[in-house]
Amino acid sequence: MKHFSDQNSLDRIIFNFSHYSKEITQILNENFNKETVELIVDKKIWGGKGSALITMSCLGIDVPPGFIVNTSLCSYYNSYNSIPSEVENKIKHAIQSLEDTLSLVFGSIDNPLLISVRSGAPISMPGMMDTILNIGLNDEIVEGLSKKYNNPRFAYDSYRRLLHMFGTTVMQIESNLFDLPFDYLKISEGVTSDHHVSVDGLKKLINTYKNIILEQSKEDFPQNVYDQLFRAIKAVLDSWQSKRAIKYREIYNISEDLGTAVTVQAMVFGNLSEKSCTGVIFSRNPSNGDNEIFGEFLLNAQGEDIVSGIKNSLPISIKMEKSWQIINNEDLSISIPESMERLMPDVFVKLKNISKKLEYFYGDMQDIEFTVENGRLWILQSRSGKRSSLASLKIANDMVEEKIINKKQALKIIPIQTFEQLLHCGLDYSFIKIPPLTCGLPASPGAAVGMVATNVKDAELMAKMGKVILVRNETSPEDMSGIAVADGIITARGGMTSHAAVVARGMGKSCICSVSGLFVDGKNIHINGEKFPSGTYLSMDSTKGEIYLGQIPIIASNIPYEFEMINSWINEYKKIDIHANAETIGDIESAFSLGATAIGLCRTEHMFFSPERIFYMRKMILSKDHSDRVFNLDILEKYQQHDFEKIFEISKGKAVTIRLLDPPLHEFLPHDDKEIKEFCIQSNSIESDVKLSLAIKKEHNPMLGHRGCRLAITYPEIYIMQVRAILCAISKLVSERKVSEYELYPEIMIPLVSNVNELAICKKLVQDTFDDFCESLNDNDLKNSLSKISYKFGAMIELPCAALQADRIAEICDFISFGTNDLTQTTLGLSRDDSANFIATYVNKKIWNNDPFVTIEQSTVGELLKIAINKARSSNPKIKIGICGEHAGNPESIPFINSLQIDYISCSPYRIPLARLISSQV
Amino acid sequence: MKHFSDQNSLDRIIFNFSHYSKEITQILNENFNKETVELIVDKKIWGGKGSALITMSCLGIDVPPGFIVNTSLCSYYNSYNSIPSEVENKIKHAIQSLEDTLSLVFGSIDNPLLISVRSGAPISMPGMMDTILNIGLNDEIVEGLSKKYNNPRFAYDSYRRLLHMFGTTVMQIESNLFDLPFDYLKISEGVTSDHHVSVDGLKKLINTYKNIILEQSKEDFPQNVYDQLFRAIKAVLDSWQSKRAIKYREIYNISEDLGTAVTVQAMVFGNLSEKSCTGVIFSRNPSNGDNEIFGEFLLNAQGEDIVSGIKNSLPISIKMEKSWQIINNEDLSISIPESMERLMPDVFVKLKNISKKLEYFYGDMQDIEFTVENGRLWILQSRSGKRSSLASLKIANDMVEEKIINKKQALKIIPIQTFEQLLHCGLDYSFIKIPPLTCGLPASPGAAVGMVATNVKDAELMAKMGKVILVRNETSPEDMSGIAVADGIITARGGMTSHAAVVARGMGKSCICSVSGLFVDGKNIHINGEKFPSGTYLSMDSTKGEIYLGQIPIIASNIPYEFEMINSWINEYKKIDIHANAETIGDIESAFSLGATAIGLCRTEHMFFSPERIFYMRKMILSKDHSDRVFNLDILEKYQQHDFEKIFEISKGKAVTIRLLDPPLHEFLPHDDKEIKEFCIQSNSIESDVKLSLAIKKEHNPMLGHRGCRLAITYPEIYIMQVRAILCAISKLVSERKVSEYELYPEIMIPLVSNVNELAICKKLVQDTFDDFCESLNDNDLKNSLSKISYKFGAMIELPCAALQADRIAEICDFISFGTNDLTQTTLGLSRDDSANFIATYVNKKIWNNDPFVTIEQSTVGELLKIAINKARSSNPKIKIGICGEHAGNPESIPFINSLQIDYISCSPYRIPLARLISSQV
Repeated sequence: MKHFSDQNSLDRIIFNFSHYSKEITQILNENFNKETVELIVDKKIWGGKGSALITMSCLGIDVPPGFIVNTSLCSYYNSYNSIPSEVENKIKHAIQSLEDTLSLVFGSIDNPLLISVRSGAPISMPGMMDTILNIGLNDEIVEGLSKKYNNPRFAYDSYRRLLHMFGTTVMQIESNLFDLPFDYLKISEGVTSDHHVSVDGLKKLINTYKNIILEQSKEDFPQNVYDQLFRAIKAVLDSWQSKRAIKYREIYNISEDLGTAVTVQAMVFGNLSEKSCTGVIFSRNPSNGDNEIFGEFLLNAQGEDIVSGIKNSLPISIKMEKSWQIINNEDLSISIPESMERLMPDVFVKLKNISKKLEYFYGDMQDIEFTVENGRLWILQSRSGKRSSLASLKIANDMVEEKIINKKQALKIIPIQTFEQLLHCGLDYSFIKIPPLTCGLPASPGAAVGMVATNVKDAELMAKMGKVILVRNETSPEDMSGIAVADGIITARGGMTSHAAVVARGMGKSCICSVSGLFVDGKNIHINGEKFPSGTYLSMDSTKGEIYLGQIPIIASNIPYEFEMINSWINEYKKIDIHANAETIGDIESAFSLGATAIGLCRTEHMFFSPERIFYMRKMILSKDHSDRVFNLDILEKYQQHDFEKIFEISKGKAVTIRLLDPPLHEFLPHDDKEIKEFCIQSNSIESDVKLSLAIKKEHNPMLGHRGCRLAITYPEIYIMQVRAILCAISKLVSERKVSEYELYPEIMIPLVSNVNELAICKKLVQDTFDDFCESLNDNDLKNSLSKISYKFGAMIELPCAALQADRIAEICDFISFGTNDLTQTTLGLSRDDSANFIATYVNKKIWNNDPFVTIEQSTVGELLKIAINKARSSNPKIKIGICGEHAGNPESIPFINSLQIDYISCSPYRIPLARLISSQV
Repeated sequence: MKHFSDQNSLDRIIFNFSHYSKEITQILNENFNKETVELIVDKKIWGGKGSALITMSCLGIDVPPGFIVNTSLCSYYNSYNSIPSEVENKIKHAIQSLEDTLSLVFGSIDNPLLISVRSGAPISMPGMMDTILNIGLNDEIVEGLSKKYNNPRFAYDSYRRLLHMFGTTVMQIESNLFDLPFDYLKISEGVTSDHHVSVDGLKKLINTYKNIILEQSKEDFPQNVYDQLFRAIKAVLDSWQSKRAIKYREIYNISEDLGTAVTVQAMVFGNLSEKSCTGVIFSRNPSNGDNEIFGEFLLNAQGEDIVSGIKNSLPISIKMEKSWQIINNEDLSISIPESMERLMPDVFVKLKNISKKLEYFYGDMQDIEFTVENGRLWILQSRSGKRSSLASLKIANDMVEEKIINKKQALKIIPIQTFEQLLHCGLDYSFIKIPPLTCGLPASPGAAVGMVATNVKDAELMAKMGKVILVRNETSPEDMSGIAVADGIITARGGMTSHAAVVARGMGKSCICSVSGLFVDGKNIHINGEKFPSGTYLSMDSTKGEIYLGQIPIIASNIPYEFEMINSWINEYKKIDIHANAETIGDIESAFSLGATAIGLCRTEHMFFSPERIFYMRKMILSKDHSDRVFNLDILEKYQQHDFEKIFEISKGKAVTIRLLDPPLHEFLPHDDKEIKEFCIQSNSIESDVKLSLAIKKEHNPMLGHRGCRLAITYPEIYIMQVRAILCAISKLVSERKVSEYELYPEIMIPLVSNVNELAICKKLVQDTFDDFCESLNDNDLKNSLSKISYKFGAMIELPCAALQADRIAEICDFISFGTNDLTQTTLGLSRDDSANFIATYVNKKIWNNDPFVTIEQSTVGELLKIAINKARSSNPKIKIGICGEHAGNPESIPFINSLQIDYISCSPYRIPLARLISSQV
């Protein structure tokens, strides 16, 4: 008995949240307040809904009495597919206790207790899990209920609902088998509203439903109410493993281990009369954030009706009446719909007060479900409400002004994706009715819609007819003109630093890389085996990394005035410096404007991809000897100097960490026959010679090959060129008085360091180049200025061996920076470019909780980070430590990263607001 | 002052080893004996030669008095290129002390002290370092010396020698400039022997030599004797950094940090008269191990004459006289050469006694240099003698029988390469006069000589004309017929487990892989930029991994009867089990015959490379769906079952660890258009479809891709097939009563495990397959037998993440095995296949001490091993831990591996004797 091995956990499996139950009394005695609520009412145990019911009971808010069976039952049920008899007994006792509280009897004909069975996961999964209402009715009890309330329509309507829900949810019968006869009945009776159907009609419908059940499931609808109860509970537990729930958890990265709690609650009836209703409200306007109650309700209906959206709802407030007509596209000539505020003013005031009470208690805008039974208000659920990005900022700001929460708390209620959504356009999700075709890495945020083009020529042609999305297996510099005309770029391979990703971010275009299941073959693209021809319309949300079939409208970005305010709060609370990974003028400028305090990673290799530069780069790599190589490096030095001049000028007063050349050299080389031919013509080389050189330079596993500072060990002249370019740039800026020597903070970072011996050689190379350069200067003033610049020297720790020897490495460094992408690749032995196809399976099978390239794998990569940081600090307490890599901007990784107490993180400019926000939330 | 910062080390920089010097007296007081000698006389400080001189002084053996300057001077000199003045003064004082001991004066005309300056590294580097004799002579002193000994021939001969050695060694003048005039002199005087040249001739020669020196070096030969001394010392120190010494250290993996000591010693003169001589002896016969003194000497000569081999030497003993004639191809009609035993019987007896004394003291056969000056014997050097593999076994065996050493000590004096040399043929190194062209991984031991063929067709054609060596960038199954006709295989790429390596080992052919600087292009091969056409003769020593230009004779292998004896001693002393990596019948049989106690790594992937199997393997990989895949797997299962039957049958009673499929699947796929076409015809597939599938399956970094147990996570049916094949094989053997259930010890090993979740899925898969299989059996007897087989389940730890989580992994394992090859690749971020080109640079620049794929990188990979072993033992104290990978058989790594206290290592069959020997030496 997995979870019930000790009596203790079995004793605590049920929580009775009826007012004055012993459990509630105990909580109230334990000093229940805003601060302690999360500790006492643990969502992981009692689920979101259950926790809210407990909390509301404690606050004296009327909730229908009932009890919760905690999530451990779900874990047990998942393993053994049964409910242990001890738990069954406990549930039966809890039902008895509920009978006592309400003076009703479950299964009684005269005085029946009806109950609902609902799911309630620790993390909300709206619409994914099952609910069954009106349990406790059968052929006899429905008569009793009818008599008791003297309301046969209500009784038979409730029974109809039970048969329908039980039939679909418990017995897995298709829903439309129940819908059709009901629609037919309404037509035959000439009514449109469910609650205008005649009692006789309902009785006939009930017979039809019972026949459908017998026919479809080969068994009668169970007349025993306890059978109904336990089958309903099992159905709720089963729904945790339903396909849609699994899919939802996959998409939203929710652990299967959490499980769902089960809430069993006395029914309150929104369908009892015209003085009854059911509805949902938000404590503030979730679209614009206005501080006013917002919502809708349905007269004479049960909760399911509003959730399923199959009835016409009414607005909650008088203020909403007018706009309601417009929103619902109703005929304006017809009378304005009456609001609850108008129809049930007392209930409305009560509801408003409760919504404020809950909002104040939770310190956040609330989404509240309620039912009114014959004029009495019952609250069924309360949780933090989903809101637009705009609203989230306004609400946070307003609630601080209203002194409901302080600034620090306000930062925590801003959803972390908010900033990203605000800064980029996005797809209008109200138009999305289908799941995404596939997903990939969100390489450059935004959204795009257009026709698929699979090559540059097609892209250019199609761009004259409309919007284009360029889809490639991977891009290279020759695809530039195709990228230029496309609105979005999708690639099957390549990571966040692939050519496509870097170029797209630089151009501000939408880009998704490493798309799972995608392959481009000629004029067709294949996604998970399905073929889509060139010209097919796709929509892409590259902030999320999702790709949809068809055309989905795009919503523009919109930065509200509260943005600045909130940004200033972040400065007060953030614990860690946020630097940017940037090397283009555009990226650097946006990085600083978005709040970066330095350039934490300036990748020098990206500077060599433009056509005239790559030619010399290729010549340099294919050089016959040292002097030939130096000749070509001299040309490249001029280009690089020019770039550095611009970079230092716009980064005036801020540190710029320049990472020397990192990728395997063959990344720069021509890839196909056409490119080779062009290169040979341009360089006047013999094709067979070039092909031989290329073949020799080919690597089986370039990620583990001749790259990073290994290049500098074999060809020191390459790094010497780069250091000289930095010094030339600085000299030029200083001598032209564009930037003073006091405003320059160059930092030189060595990539892919293996150990201290290797790094020491690189350090000497850098220092010697600096000394030689200064020595060679004729201008004494300049010499003097340069001597005042003390550059910092650092290493990237991105191999397990370097992490394990970080103490020795740190001894000769001013700073170290963890490249968590590469460190993940080597620690897990997992190539980012090749693992897209099976990582999803690994996450599904719970081998990893998350994609390790998105969220830091704490127990291994994280462990190495800790080891390395401790070692580095032990040998050099003053060392500056940072992380650069896509993990640095990953919301799930940031709490862990913060726990490391490092000095800075460096991420892509577009992730800076996000990273700043998260670093302030910890 | 790097090494002399404290007075203490400066005080101890010089050791005076003259009899009764205070240093020798102190050692004798410290209980100097066999056991403590290595502690007291540290070779790292005093060098090999110096330590021997000290030891011999202590043993009361006559050595020419002198002193040693320790290796720390060399370290200092390497950094600063000068000798600190304090050390200069100490050397001058030591010379004075030598003058006092001998009542001679350095630089005196009447009573001159002549000295030698010799190098002496901690590890012997024969012929690599410089020596200068007869220092202390000048134009005047030579006259004095002549008068003192009344022997002008001796005096001028000594001066001639000084001028020649000083000129070449200190002044870097080409040696043949000195040789030519001497040869001319001998011809003009009509003599053949150096010591028959006339005194006048010598005087003229001396003038010629002085002119040569002045002309070549623009300076006179220094007449100041202290100038001579210090310049000679510097020359000896410089020779540590000479090209040939650096090359030698590279080849023999000797650290540059060791440095050389400098020995300054009074000259004794083997060239003083016909009662003087110089020679070298071995205490036993180094060719066949016979217990008899063996060696040669030269009358009236100095040591250099015998070392340089430019004179005709005489045999040492009467027994050797007869064979001497034969060996030296002398005319048998001429009188038999007279031995020392005949010419100087007293000296011979003394020498024999000293050789026994030294052999007894060192517990090993000795190589001894001596000089006789006017009938008095002086010992110049004693060290362990190099011997043939055959001799090494006989000597070890005899010395145990003679009770000189015990078995444990005997095992330690067997050179570790001995066993490998004995079991395989080798190149005859007496014919090798040039350094190797290049080196690679010794993938399959032995030797081969033949013409280069670069493709199968050429190989087959050329094999009709003579021996062939097939040289390829890498091999694939289509090269099989080329490999079959070749004597040796050389590949530019691929590791110890590449196709070429595995096939060659299976066929017992010589193979060298991952050859540095090699590239095959059409009909030519390029080695380090130099082009060699097809047909070029190469010689390869694949036990060492060396490739030579030209044809070098091959020596056959020869296993002596002592082999069995010594093998039985190993069983008594080895600390760790030795298992074999083997899967072919041949390999398994040789593994057991060589002493493996189990099969530690049976690689199942090698079983799929034969033409008919690879076809189904390819079909399986390119299957459209699950059922298609299962169809092809069913066919492969039959093949695999058949293999396992044979493996279990010959491994009866021994454990067999079967590693389930490991390599990326695309390794099995067709590589070029021809193969693709063939596959399409055979499988009736459409070429474009196959090409598309191949393109989709292509990986950028296959080493970090979809391989190992990742295959089983996405395609469980593959591992299920393999486990079923094992069970079918077992069932067949048991039911046919070929092997009983009590003789079967299958162990199933999961490769490339990332964490415990992944392993748990694999474990369940194996157990479920086992249960299902047993369930499906109709035969109850068989069911009963199978239930008695408890297979073991284990994981390969070859990723840093697995090492870091070994505690959790160990919880569900019976054993773990470290794959140190892959662990090295990921820990260092270094692809074995791509790093050959720069690893040499890394070792040269001392970034790593050794090639990390040959010797375990202790500070990182070793650290992870330690972490993992501690973690694994902490959670599962009973777990069996092993290492399999080429490091397991690497002599340099074994002491470290032994320190880990693991249970077993598993290595290639041909390395088993070596591994056994080493494990017993620790």
